[in-house]
Amino acid sequence: MKILVVNVNTTESMTQSIGDAARAVAGPGSQIVELTPTFGAESVEGNFESYLAAVAVMDAVVSYRDSYDAVVLAGFGEHGKEGVMELVETPVVDITEASAHLAMLLGDRFSVVTTLDRNVPPIEDRLLSYGLDRRCASVRSTGLSVLELEDADIAKAAITREAERALAEDNAEVIVLGCGGMAGLDREISKQLGIPVVEGVTAAVKLAESLVALELSTSKVRSYAAPNPKKITGWPLRHE
Amino acid sequence: MKILVVNVNTTESMTQSIGDAARAVAGPGSQIVELTPTFGAESVEGNFESYLAAVAVMDAVVSYRDSYDAVVLAGFGEHGKEGVMELVETPVVDITEASAHLAMLLGDRFSVVTTLDRNVPPIEDRLLSYGLDRRCASVRSTGLSVLELEDADIAKAAITREAERALAEDNAEVIVLGCGGMAGLDREISKQLGIPVVEGVTAAVKLAESLVALELSTSKVRSYAAPNPKKITGWPLRHE
Amino acid sequence: MKILVVNVNTTESMTQSIGDAARAVAGPGSQIVELTPTFGAESVEGNFESYLAAVAVMDAVVSYRDSYDAVVLAGFGEHGKEGVMELVETPVVDITEASAHLAMLLGDRFSVVTTLDRNVPPIEDRLLSYGLDRRCASVRSTGLSVLELEDADIAKAAITREAERALAEDNAEVIVLGCGGMAGLDREISKQLGIPVVEGVTAAVKLAESLVALELSTSKVRSYAAPNPKKITGWPLRHE
Amino acid sequence: MKILVVNVNTTESMTQSIGDAARAVAGPGSQIVELTPTFGAESVEGNFESYLAAVAVMDAVVSYRDSYDAVVLAGFGEHGKEGVMELVETPVVDITEASAHLAMLLGDRFSVVTTLDRNVPPIEDRLLSYGLDRRCASVRSTGLSVLELEDADIAKAAITREAERALAEDNAEVIVLGCGGMAGLDREISKQLGIPVVEGVTAAVKLAESLVALELSTSKVRSYAAPNPKKITGWPLRHE
Amino acid sequence: MKILVVNVNTTESMTQSIGDAARAVAGPGSQIVELTPTFGAESVEGNFESYLAAVAVMDAVVSYRDSYDAVVLAGFGEHGKEGVMELVETPVVDITEASAHLAMLLGDRFSVVTTLDRNVPPIEDRLLSYGLDRRCASVRSTGLSVLELEDADIAKAAITREAERALAEDNAEVIVLGCGGMAGLDREISKQLGIPVVEGVTAAVKLAESLVALELSTSKVRSYAAPNPKKITGWPLRHE
Amino acid sequence: MKILVVNVNTTESMTQSIGDAARAVAGPGSQIVELTPTFGAESVEGNFESYLAAVAVMDAVVSYRDSYDAVVLAGFGEHGKEGVMELVETPVVDITEASAHLAMLLGDRFSVVTTLDRNVPPIEDRLLSYGLDRRCASVRSTGLSVLELEDADIAKAAITREAERALAEDNAEVIVLGCGGMAGLDREISKQLGIPVVEGVTAAVKLAESLVALELSTSKVRSYAAPNPKKITGWPLRHE
Repeated sequence: MKILVVNVNTTESMTQSIGDAARAVAGPGSQIVELTPTFGAESVEGNFESYLAAVAVMDAVVSYRDSYDAVVLAGFGEHGKEGVMELVETPVVDITEASAHLAMLLGDRFSVVTTLDRNVPPIEDRLLSYGLDRRCASVRSTGLSVLELEDADIAKAAITREAERALAEDNAEVIVLGCGGMAGLDREISKQLGIPVVEGVTAAVKLAESLVALELSTSKVRSYAAPNPKKITGWPLRHE
Repeated sequence: MKILVVNVNTTESMTQSIGDAARAVAGPGSQIVELTPTFGAESVEGNFESYLAAVAVMDAVVSYRDSYDAVVLAGFGEHGKEGVMELVETPVVDITEASAHLAMLLGDRFSVVTTLDRNVPPIEDRLLSYGLDRRCASVRSTGLSVLELEDADIAKAAITREAERALAEDNAEVIVLGCGGMAGLDREISKQLGIPVVEGVTAAVKLAESLVALELSTSKVRSYAAPNPKKITGWPLRHE
Repeated sequence: MKILVVNVNTTESMTQSIGDAARAVAGPGSQIVELTPTFGAESVEGNFESYLAAVAVMDAVVSYRDSYDAVVLAGFGEHGKEGVMELVETPVVDITEASAHLAMLLGDRFSVVTTLDRNVPPIEDRLLSYGLDRRCASVRSTGLSVLELEDADIAKAAITREAERALAEDNAEVIVLGCGGMAGLDREISKQLGIPVVEGVTAAVKLAESLVALELSTSKVRSYAAPNPKKITGWPLRHE
Repeated sequence: MKILVVNVNTTESMTQSIGDAARAVAGPGSQIVELTPTFGAESVEGNFESYLAAVAVMDAVVSYRDSYDAVVLAGFGEHGKEGVMELVETPVVDITEASAHLAMLLGDRFSVVTTLDRNVPPIEDRLLSYGLDRRCASVRSTGLSVLELEDADIAKAAITREAERALAEDNAEVIVLGCGGMAGLDREISKQLGIPVVEGVTAAVKLAESLVALELSTSKVRSYAAPNPKKITGWPLRHE
Repeated sequence: MKILVVNVNTTESMTQSIGDAARAVAGPGSQIVELTPTFGAESVEGNFESYLAAVAVMDAVVSYRDSYDAVVLAGFGEHGKEGVMELVETPVVDITEASAHLAMLLGDRFSVVTTLDRNVPPIEDRLLSYGLDRRCASVRSTGLSVLELEDADIAKAAITREAERALAEDNAEVIVLGCGGMAGLDREISKQLGIPVVEGVTAAVKLAESLVALELSTSKVRSYAAPNPKKITGWPLRHE
Repeated sequence: MKILVVNVNTTESMTQSIGDAARAVAGPGSQIVELTPTFGAESVEGNFESYLAAVAVMDAVVSYRDSYDAVVLAGFGEHGKEGVMELVETPVVDITEASAHLAMLLGDRFSVVTTLDRNVPPIEDRLLSYGLDRRCASVRSTGLSVLELEDADIAKAAITREAERALAEDNAEVIVLGCGGMAGLDREISKQLGIPVVEGVTAAVKLAESLVALELSTSKVRSYAAPNPKKITGWPLRHE
């Protein structure tokens, strides 16, 4: 099967890391194709950039001309999943929901450790919309921007510090890494803390593979039916 | 004061109706400027079009070069408010929240009567995100598309029928008109049913005027701080 | 239009301050008439006094013989709104709900800063009843009694201290002043903290004006229908 | 022990029925003293009358000069409990909460069957305030006024009809009689329907006896501390 | 009337203490019969032991051959109540729900003080299942195991310390003792802290007596109907 | 990897069907080992049998002497997962949660279609405990007992009928088959209704494989730490 893994920002090196993380856990028959949007922010932090990313991701998916079996949206806490679900026939898995779903299988409550403080309310909102809020103990910020995560040592130290607070103060038992740019850090932090650490890209790949294996895809009877035929100006919006 | 009232679709006649509805209730010192997005759907129904509209509305607002005092977003149940809040310094009022806020002042529970069935879950989701869900008795669909609302007699008949069901079956005491295209129908339906009927554009204009009069605007300390400086490709996205 | 603004306690000087605050924001065509109950506590703190105030306020409203267009109830967190809604035909706006409604338009979460600790649970309860609890980050007490607020410097210092804690510890982005006796302090505290501060009397006046302008009033079909005709002993209860 | 059972309306015959119902289940050492307010409605239906009753009940309790061990408030869905809790040192049990507490011990969900439709939202609100809403399947109206309940045959027929609907349509497993005036009807309806039927006055008497036996009374550390000393005009309000 | 009080563990001395606590508050006509399971843990801490206790308690009840009028389940936060409700015709009262019900009558919010930290999530879960979670301020752990409670001085000191934190930090107004092994400590801690302290065994005995006096028992129409006739291997499981 | 799939009842033919369903979707490297409890009900319907099954399943798992990589609990809506999580080091996936997790990826809301009406409240309770309730539109009963499901034609007709009602009346977009005995019916019903139908055993196998592939297992820091060492009488309880 072929899985599209779509970055939400325009930074190609981040697309590459996300693709690598996906490939590292993909099953033997799974092919990972990573996509980068042609417009939008180099890193997505906050609502304006998130909405822009939602559209840029939809644009990237509909502009992909080959066939595929599933779509993974690799922006943590970003908008857009419902739109992609309308546009494609395959399963669509967002890394926010994917990591929360797996975290809930592993302990009583989970905490998300994310980047900037301004991203906390949007992540809380997305978990609420997905119906995945009640077992979330907290969403905590490291204070690092997405691009600052590129220094893996700084990233690990900051994530570990907040994860320890989540365990001690919020009664979390599982940690979710709350940024696509944290892919690859989960196992080391897990070992250090002695608890399960769930990373969204890898979680989403396994859930996408599971849905494809079970021949399950998005329900098309109501919320996620294909868009009604109508005049749409300027779509797709590709910037090339 | 000057209030920008932004349509979410590209149908100019609808922009005009929305502007007229806004002007009809605007206070003596208020000037209404209506804007139409330069790209997106001729009518917004469903999540893909809603996300596209969110970005098209942000694009229209940032491309408006004069000064203004408040922004009204005239799409019922659409995405985007949080993004506009980051981009501008003035208050931003969405018609979904505006009508729910006023409806809650007028009775125990309100019901929303909207267009197509596929729009029901997104409206429920937006009310949930806004923290305005608990006193919503139901969101009901007339089965009419946005463009079918242009026949006012058909629209009134369908809305009245669902409103009566909401009163009888869902214990609603107040009706909210769940589409920007229903502007102008509220008073007649209210008289016929003998209950308050809240329309979002007019509600939002009065709330925007209230905030400006009280010198209140969006908090900029966290969720809605201005976007961080960074490279953004292809923004604004205007299609002209 | 004429708006009755009803104090919940018997302290005339507080009625005067509330009336002044209302007048300061009232629109050009709005007349403010302030009323003081003829019985009850000199300041309302706690449930017994709140219930007494609920009845004293209803008594003051029904004993007012001239016509009017809206009623503002100027007790923060007090009981009684539902009763007044049954007794009058005009809109009725309580300062608790008014300030919460406007605060929700301005940021992700708001905190209320009130007087004594014993008033915290009743305010929480009223927000719950109004369906306005979910985006309330916290209700915090300054430890000051209503009458101690008369020293504006002490009041401002105490409110600012708790507001800063709400921002830092509870993730509030907007502050609501949780006592009618805090009218007049909002703008100065807002400037000092750099965030929006919502005061209930002024918020309620603008919402009342909005409803009147939109020709909206309380739904009379169920919860707030006029009382059924029956024998009521000793009503009104005026103490003069 | 002596238990004050306070009617919420001024109809002496109803006070007598409530007292009789209380005595029928009181333990061997319990003395029931029933009180009637000196002002207020002959029957309480709706919010205005409920608030008036809240104050009239407080007035009746503080005007009772002998000692007592507990207070039962015999108005279903009425206001006032929190005020009485501040004013007295003994336990205070309201029949709304009492019947919900016992109903929750007896089945998965309970439904309340009450009088007029206008009383449904206030009962729902009180259950919400008490934190007793989540296992309430529904609050259903018989359409009968409080005074129409005096014809026991009509009352039983109407209650039975709505209870049957609650079982069939709302998945209730236990019925709560939602009016103090329904005291005495529980056992017969229970036998007819083959399910437990909880009546509030009798439930509250047993809970009051239980608290007294366990030497438990209202916590006075915060919400229900005695009122602060201050000037209160016109209190008590007795109308004699 | 005869009330079976069933310990959840196999420690006979604890059964005895629980029986003594029950007898100390039982009404004049009430006989307490305490039962010990024939298998399971000497003290129940955690989910495996709780499930085992659920079955051992059901086994003890169905193996009791005399008649009885009510069953009290003396394990705080343990599983099993719903099973016993199916198996017997009398009321069944669990000490978790019993103490929460009474605590809610006595103050705005209650906190539970329990044994090990690992027991906190199961207690929270049981309160959620019972619909008794919303007024629970916190569930706090003393860090003591069930068996360490046998030293009453250590137990009292640890419970008092956590109760004080619950009052100061969580805004609790009432304390619930969260372990059957804490029976007998309530009054002393209550005196020391000046607030009501509710103990589950005594609370459950009074609620059981109340239900019997009111001739109320478990609804048998749906959730708690007697098990359907079928082949069950190895039941009862007695280990003697 | 080796996955233990544990039936909750003692009917060997059902164990076989469950094992076959698991094998049909297992990945190339996965071995399925199905286990049958040595005691308990031939079919589990209701709380008594569910608690007995919880212990019988734990007994079967701890008595299995070979190594394994994950455990799937094949009883829909049954108790016990938290106990098994304490007893083993591998991931444990329950079919109730597994199917809800996947259903939430596929549409706005899902409905569960189960066997007898008495099983509805326990399933609702388990979804609540798992934090998976908010996007569940309804739990519907076919009225068929577990053993009546063996006639596949009757089962399919009854499930299809209730699923259609869930779509039309409850706004479900995805159906979950609410009984382990329904394994094998999902794809045919899905084709007939044109919507995704999720079956729990197959969902759980894919989730278990996903967790193993990601090297994730139960957090052992608090709720699901191994049981404390202590005397446990009569464990394991095997009946052979």
